[in-house]
Amino acid sequence: MLWSIVGTLAAICTTIGYIPQIIRGIRTKNLNDVSPMMLTLLLVGCSLWLAYGIHLKDPIIALANGFTLSFVITILLLRAAYKKNNS
Amino acid sequence: MLWSIVGTLAAICTTIGYIPQIIRGIRTKNLNDVSPMMLTLLLVGCSLWLAYGIHLKDPIIALANGFTLSFVITILLLRAAYKKNNS
Repeated sequence: MLWSIVGTLAAICTTIGYIPQIIRGIRTKNLNDVSPMMLTLLLVGCSLWLAYGIHLKDPIIALANGFTLSFVITILLLRAAYKKNNS
Repeated sequence: MLWSIVGTLAAICTTIGYIPQIIRGIRTKNLNDVSPMMLTLLLVGCSLWLAYGIHLKDPIIALANGFTLSFVITILLLRAAYKKNNS
């Protein structure tokens, strides 16, 4: 019971962690320091985790990585949009 | 067998994903656009995942999050150092 709370809290932290990055990007209109290679590797990784979670029928792995994937895609799109506007 | 490869590849991508961010930071000497709140939430999340992985005796969860934790701490320390130098 305690450990399932630890696991759930872990998944929540590493998922909602990307929301402050989205907010910071929208506020400063600049995401140049954020590595596009990091975002690409996270995109591939989260897609594979999502497939793995669906295969295992594990709702925590699937949901956490589904949300993280959508946040990472948002950061990638914002970064590209701001880079275009700033150049 | 196929699915354990998918899970392992997923863990590798979401772990090594932070290395390009460290390299970019060292190259540009600037990590200002990277959200410190994101890094803090990832630090807490990976610590909990590491504890959860050790509890489950799952080497993939423990190792992946141990490495990710060390990368996130590195990015946090680099960000603080560059912020001090640039101000």
